[in-house]
Amino acid sequence: MSQHYAYGDIVLYSGSGSLALAQEISRQLNVPLGGRDITKYSNENIFIQLHSSVRGQDAFIVQSNSSPVNDNVMEMLIFIDTLKRASAGRVTAVIPYLAYARSDKKDQPRVPITARLIADMIQIAGADRYITLDLHAGQIQGFFSIPGDAITAFPLLADYMRRKQLADAVVVAADLGFAKKARSFATELDLPVAFIEKRRIAAAPEALALIGEVTGKDVILVDDEVDTGKTLAQAVRLLKEEAARHIYCCFIHPVLSGDAVPRLRDLPLTEIVTTNSLPIPPKKRLPNLTVLSVAPLLSGVILRPVQ
Amino acid sequence: MSQHYAYGDIVLYSGSGSLALAQEISRQLNVPLGGRDITKYSNENIFIQLHSSVRGQDAFIVQSNSSPVNDNVMEMLIFIDTLKRASAGRVTAVIPYLAYARSDKKDQPRVPITARLIADMIQIAGADRYITLDLHAGQIQGFFSIPGDAITAFPLLADYMRRKQLADAVVVAADLGFAKKARSFATELDLPVAFIEKRRIAAAPEALALIGEVTGKDVILVDDEVDTGKTLAQAVRLLKEEAARHIYCCFIHPVLSGDAVPRLRDLPLTEIVTTNSLPIPPKKRLPNLTVLSVAPLLSGVILRPVQ
Amino acid sequence: MSQHYAYGDIVLYSGSGSLALAQEISRQLNVPLGGRDITKYSNENIFIQLHSSVRGQDAFIVQSNSSPVNDNVMEMLIFIDTLKRASAGRVTAVIPYLAYARSDKKDQPRVPITARLIADMIQIAGADRYITLDLHAGQIQGFFSIPGDAITAFPLLADYMRRKQLADAVVVAADLGFAKKARSFATELDLPVAFIEKRRIAAAPEALALIGEVTGKDVILVDDEVDTGKTLAQAVRLLKEEAARHIYCCFIHPVLSGDAVPRLRDLPLTEIVTTNSLPIPPKKRLPNLTVLSVAPLLSGVILRPVQ
Amino acid sequence: MSQHYAYGDIVLYSGSGSLALAQEISRQLNVPLGGRDITKYSNENIFIQLHSSVRGQDAFIVQSNSSPVNDNVMEMLIFIDTLKRASAGRVTAVIPYLAYARSDKKDQPRVPITARLIADMIQIAGADRYITLDLHAGQIQGFFSIPGDAITAFPLLADYMRRKQLADAVVVAADLGFAKKARSFATELDLPVAFIEKRRIAAAPEALALIGEVTGKDVILVDDEVDTGKTLAQAVRLLKEEAARHIYCCFIHPVLSGDAVPRLRDLPLTEIVTTNSLPIPPKKRLPNLTVLSVAPLLSGVILRPVQ
Amino acid sequence: MSQHYAYGDIVLYSGSGSLALAQEISRQLNVPLGGRDITKYSNENIFIQLHSSVRGQDAFIVQSNSSPVNDNVMEMLIFIDTLKRASAGRVTAVIPYLAYARSDKKDQPRVPITARLIADMIQIAGADRYITLDLHAGQIQGFFSIPGDAITAFPLLADYMRRKQLADAVVVAADLGFAKKARSFATELDLPVAFIEKRRIAAAPEALALIGEVTGKDVILVDDEVDTGKTLAQAVRLLKEEAARHIYCCFIHPVLSGDAVPRLRDLPLTEIVTTNSLPIPPKKRLPNLTVLSVAPLLSGVILRPVQ
Amino acid sequence: MSQHYAYGDIVLYSGSGSLALAQEISRQLNVPLGGRDITKYSNENIFIQLHSSVRGQDAFIVQSNSSPVNDNVMEMLIFIDTLKRASAGRVTAVIPYLAYARSDKKDQPRVPITARLIADMIQIAGADRYITLDLHAGQIQGFFSIPGDAITAFPLLADYMRRKQLADAVVVAADLGFAKKARSFATELDLPVAFIEKRRIAAAPEALALIGEVTGKDVILVDDEVDTGKTLAQAVRLLKEEAARHIYCCFIHPVLSGDAVPRLRDLPLTEIVTTNSLPIPPKKRLPNLTVLSVAPLLSGVILRPVQ
Repeated sequence: MSQHYAYGDIVLYSGSGSLALAQEISRQLNVPLGGRDITKYSNENIFIQLHSSVRGQDAFIVQSNSSPVNDNVMEMLIFIDTLKRASAGRVTAVIPYLAYARSDKKDQPRVPITARLIADMIQIAGADRYITLDLHAGQIQGFFSIPGDAITAFPLLADYMRRKQLADAVVVAADLGFAKKARSFATELDLPVAFIEKRRIAAAPEALALIGEVTGKDVILVDDEVDTGKTLAQAVRLLKEEAARHIYCCFIHPVLSGDAVPRLRDLPLTEIVTTNSLPIPPKKRLPNLTVLSVAPLLSGVILRPVQ
Repeated sequence: MSQHYAYGDIVLYSGSGSLALAQEISRQLNVPLGGRDITKYSNENIFIQLHSSVRGQDAFIVQSNSSPVNDNVMEMLIFIDTLKRASAGRVTAVIPYLAYARSDKKDQPRVPITARLIADMIQIAGADRYITLDLHAGQIQGFFSIPGDAITAFPLLADYMRRKQLADAVVVAADLGFAKKARSFATELDLPVAFIEKRRIAAAPEALALIGEVTGKDVILVDDEVDTGKTLAQAVRLLKEEAARHIYCCFIHPVLSGDAVPRLRDLPLTEIVTTNSLPIPPKKRLPNLTVLSVAPLLSGVILRPVQ
Repeated sequence: MSQHYAYGDIVLYSGSGSLALAQEISRQLNVPLGGRDITKYSNENIFIQLHSSVRGQDAFIVQSNSSPVNDNVMEMLIFIDTLKRASAGRVTAVIPYLAYARSDKKDQPRVPITARLIADMIQIAGADRYITLDLHAGQIQGFFSIPGDAITAFPLLADYMRRKQLADAVVVAADLGFAKKARSFATELDLPVAFIEKRRIAAAPEALALIGEVTGKDVILVDDEVDTGKTLAQAVRLLKEEAARHIYCCFIHPVLSGDAVPRLRDLPLTEIVTTNSLPIPPKKRLPNLTVLSVAPLLSGVILRPVQ
Repeated sequence: MSQHYAYGDIVLYSGSGSLALAQEISRQLNVPLGGRDITKYSNENIFIQLHSSVRGQDAFIVQSNSSPVNDNVMEMLIFIDTLKRASAGRVTAVIPYLAYARSDKKDQPRVPITARLIADMIQIAGADRYITLDLHAGQIQGFFSIPGDAITAFPLLADYMRRKQLADAVVVAADLGFAKKARSFATELDLPVAFIEKRRIAAAPEALALIGEVTGKDVILVDDEVDTGKTLAQAVRLLKEEAARHIYCCFIHPVLSGDAVPRLRDLPLTEIVTTNSLPIPPKKRLPNLTVLSVAPLLSGVILRPVQ
Repeated sequence: MSQHYAYGDIVLYSGSGSLALAQEISRQLNVPLGGRDITKYSNENIFIQLHSSVRGQDAFIVQSNSSPVNDNVMEMLIFIDTLKRASAGRVTAVIPYLAYARSDKKDQPRVPITARLIADMIQIAGADRYITLDLHAGQIQGFFSIPGDAITAFPLLADYMRRKQLADAVVVAADLGFAKKARSFATELDLPVAFIEKRRIAAAPEALALIGEVTGKDVILVDDEVDTGKTLAQAVRLLKEEAARHIYCCFIHPVLSGDAVPRLRDLPLTEIVTTNSLPIPPKKRLPNLTVLSVAPLLSGVILRPVQ
Repeated sequence: MSQHYAYGDIVLYSGSGSLALAQEISRQLNVPLGGRDITKYSNENIFIQLHSSVRGQDAFIVQSNSSPVNDNVMEMLIFIDTLKRASAGRVTAVIPYLAYARSDKKDQPRVPITARLIADMIQIAGADRYITLDLHAGQIQGFFSIPGDAITAFPLLADYMRRKQLADAVVVAADLGFAKKARSFATELDLPVAFIEKRRIAAAPEALALIGEVTGKDVILVDDEVDTGKTLAQAVRLLKEEAARHIYCCFIHPVLSGDAVPRLRDLPLTEIVTTNSLPIPPKKRLPNLTVLSVAPLLSGVILRPVQ
């Protein structure tokens, strides 16, 4: 049977939350970024106009929910509506970083489940499909009823670290909730794993505790995102107390909000390895920061089957 | 038959876009504002928690889509989701000023209809009903499939102006698109009406033109909102050229974005009359600004039938 | 990239509200009208059967909501259901004139918004897309959540009038609500514009008033539709009082209900220019009536991108 | 526990398809008919306005889909939209006769299922519930996802016939598709049953055949509706050939379209017994016609549990 | 115009309820059955994984709702969800026998309409289309809003019986509700028809009665399905009493639940003719059982237009 | 303001998956269990009929998704449909154990998310609200768009264990994925916590490892459910190797499928503490099994606010 493709030609757009990444995807797919005007009026309303027709075409809008978060979420939704109403054949939202993913359940009374709300809004705006990267909880896939690809960039980080051929290293999870993924990451690198947890025994005050061995070893501290960097800083301090040698820090999503960058600057980290799922402005690019590109991963999913 | 009320007791909440107005409504309804925490985290995600149960109750959330607009739109949607998931009996979104109301049609190719998107999102978040004030176009009511009350505050402005007993006055519409509403406003005041329009004859450049008589008269310039104030400033200049006497300026929604306030400060306006549909920070409160409260109007709709 | 078309071959059907127009579109697209039986039983129920398969095809049903209006609306909905259930690949409702477009908001208490209801019914019946012409209000596009093309035939009327090379003419809007569109029409013709409005000053009775100059000029009176023709007749009378020379009357939708035709016959109109968005039966075809065909416009949208 | 009623007070409206019946229901419920204007404009558009508020109330709109059918169907849908948008607490469509009930399946290729379309439209217009009478096929209940009461008026007919104490009678079904319901009807009357069917044996032409005994007996010919009366006329002729004595004809829905009334007038029928599920204009009221009122049945369902 | 096919290549899957039938369809379409694992865990949860990508392809899942019925219904729904979430271009549920089809109306108070529920669940799981065979009531098509093909296998049975060239035969319907379909079947065979009905006259107990002539004739007893076989056994007994010669029994769906097989074994049936719409395990294959394959019918609909 | 309750009186039903629990809830609420017939026909189709009206009432159906799982899931959905179609005022599904909760994400390519499917089916069947207990992942709440209460019974287990006043005890999580909840449980008991994990270092084979101290201590092994008991058995063996003293095993949901009961019987467990969220048949009631009732918890949520 032929390699028939049912959705028309690919057209690729970038929102203002992911311009550089979208350009990279564009080069890799050899599909030019579609022209569009994104205007933010004086009254803060966002307005979008496409430069050319997308009728019957297979449209992809790349928009990470980066800062300013709520503006970029709204821009993403308005962009989807624009593509739908312009009679695109299929609309896929490519969201390297999905905002509000931590608001994914009612673990207290009378709170929202905003991640479900975001998923619903993406659908009602007119998306037929979504592509995203390392969701905080895999269950968020189930918040969508449209199909989607929730892919992972951890193999990318693992490949990078493997090439360093660290002789005596250990993977450490900074948070117990990330334990299972840390173990998978360690398995890929053929390294042991250790955990840091906030433990409270009897009536004693909460304290960080290390589970596993790090003394004299190189440490690869791993997490899905770094937001303010507070947890990371505490972890690094503990690892140094436990006489870790070099500390590498790996994570997918460089949220880096608030004082995260100065905080990271002050830590004794050999290297900080992350991705461009969120744009990192030049002033946040520390000398020891390595940014791996997720563009090949996303290009791959856009073009062909991944899972 | 009894005055049975089917939706449980009224509970009233305020978002961060309408705090003062909500407090006023609360006093008028003699219903306390419900306790809630609205947190904006370092990563810009908004989080809401209600202090007490709303089960089976008739919940109202007052949230004008004021600046920062996209944050307040998201907060409104998250608040509705919170109320719905807390098993409120009915959720009504009270939105004195609805954002994106000017993005209400495709008058150019390949643009969004964001006002419909907002309406859809309000519904999918869980609102059962909406209350709003002087929509830019009445048709936006049809963007909702839930019932709602789109009320007008122009009678409020008319009452205020009528009490001035201006001897020889004329109502002027600053934009031709507002002509019909200006005529209604003039009718309420038993005054003549005149229009300002941007007219272009043959190949001549576009220019403002006045239709009707204002020489030596007091003028009541009327519109639904003032955004940057540019159109208003042009209109006032023309009216002064045409030898208008005192100029009053009346509008419902004080958007007042960008340089609107300095621009208004420099205009020869006797009085600027508007409402509190949007909060006006102290620094924007010019000495000749009069702010009428829409709280009684909104309280009325919350409590009993209006239309 | 290839000119891939994703929806199967075009099949074209006509309802009973647009037979002649659909035949014209059929000739222009070189796509035969699909065979179908439309039966109205003795009990007034409408029944439709297609003569051949539409599986996986790109089906268009052309049905203006002409008189008998409610029958034709129902027939349109039943036709869409028929196409959907016959597994058409995509169903597009081509509705040159959409009924109930004036019921587009609640401008009085306790009234319907029937235009939204019609939009919802078109979607629930199974349309994937719509094409329509000069909606009474552009916002009605936002009543649909499916994509669509709301195109305008005013350039068609403008082209026709331009070819007359009227030396000293003016465009006149018969209703203030049509002022902005009249101005656009005048701009296309490089002519000045004037307005007729029902003005009420102080306690005086309502009266028609002319804004602008028409004395000794040819007048092009323009509107989106002519229904009973009453407003038009009043306007023509006023224009004659104001010593207009030749009067042309241009409008898109020839609703021509009630006594419209005798009323128009009696008016001193040089020419009445309209379109075939609605069928005009022979007995309504006045000698000075010119009917321009919208078939090329609609054929264009069916075949390729317009906006 | 108390007899709490959760939906507010009952308000009752009549469409133009069921005025007399609605008045009767109103008297029985001791609930006045709500004031409303139903206007049919010159352009055939239907417009509705309610005279007073229905906020939070339990609204019932009585509208049989009588002739003109498509107008009355549209009016019903517009009425539901009006009630919903006026914030009624619950909207129930009371539809004594539901149009298009015979278009309930695809028994030929490429035909619609209009009854499902009607059900969908009733729901999308905003009905929360429906009440109807003797659907052509019980399965049409499953076309609705809202709850409803599909009640039967056959016991009413049976009670009336039982009081005649016919000594030697037989129930006859005029159509094989009605056989099971005819048998139930006969069972209620404690009478034998016979069938008339169109039978075709070998290559012989189609002919009516009687199954069962009618010679010398009184016959109660029964069906759910009489439309053109052709089938009925054929049946009566056959029964007379088979020497039936008195023939009574019983059916729920007096559609009586086309030449039904002259046809019935010419038949040797002792009595025609039907209901007021559809209005019967005076000129159609034959001397031997008895009309039983379904108002008590419908009033009963409106007020309290039926099934 | 070309034979463009808009939905991608066909991929074919089998659930565990129709393995043999799906294999036959696979051979006829020359499309291999897609690899998949269907696991039923110890906790009875069903889990599915596809072996290869279905992105953008035209996926068909063949799953009869055979015993264990509820497991197979759930498996069908989970399979549809799997295909949808794997980004199939179109998902068609091929359901040779649809369960719960007899729960298609509320003929008693306070009962479900499970057939509508099943249809809704098939849609919400993600099916775009369905194909099924001889629904118990044609109206069930209207329970779906997605398009579908509800085809009939009776011509298959008729062809088979015709080839026997029975000299003096009669078609008999075992149930009055099947009378119309029996008559169609008889018409195809150019044979007379007779009915068996449960008749109750006056206060006498219910009894089977034969309508029509069978004495000395070959009888083809026909129905849509045989479940427990009780009704069938009663019918055969009556036919023998009425001196029928050879009795053939024809039906589409071999449900054969409970004691059906021993019951059929004991009946004086010359031949039992059915289809493989439901799998018949070897131990239920009586010597006089003939199973016709519906695979060509279903293959035909999968590949090309049927109605 | 009054304690108005908006949904009618409470009516309480039990499915066949939770009879004893529902009876207990009934006694506690002092609301009798509603009469209903649940029939499973020979063809395995489930049929439900309610004995009395539920019109306008606040209906609760208690149905754990116990074994036979798929039958009980279908029965739950059919029950909801029955209540909805009987015009209940509100329908709440009380599901102490929700099946398929572990199928909550695509952690492999081309698999379903069945938990979302179940949530969708509960909604489409007509539930307005749900109540459930200790979902496998909190995010499953976000699979529902209707409101619900996902409550926890761990405080019940904690209270029970606290009363034992174990002198030197430790809480142990049998699975790393349960680590956070185990820590919360330990915190409630003011005890230390330890973890068992499957750890793989370098190329060594996978092995269980204990993190934390258990030697000489009483151990409370905790999890959300016990299915086959294999993981539990491995954990107990390891704990004994590590010289734990008494071992108590606590979990909410007694799935106990396959060989779970013999496996548990053979383990050196001092006590097995669980709840009646799923019915435990007498033959599965080991001598050291303690079953705490969740009826008070569920009754509480049914009657009044919980969170």
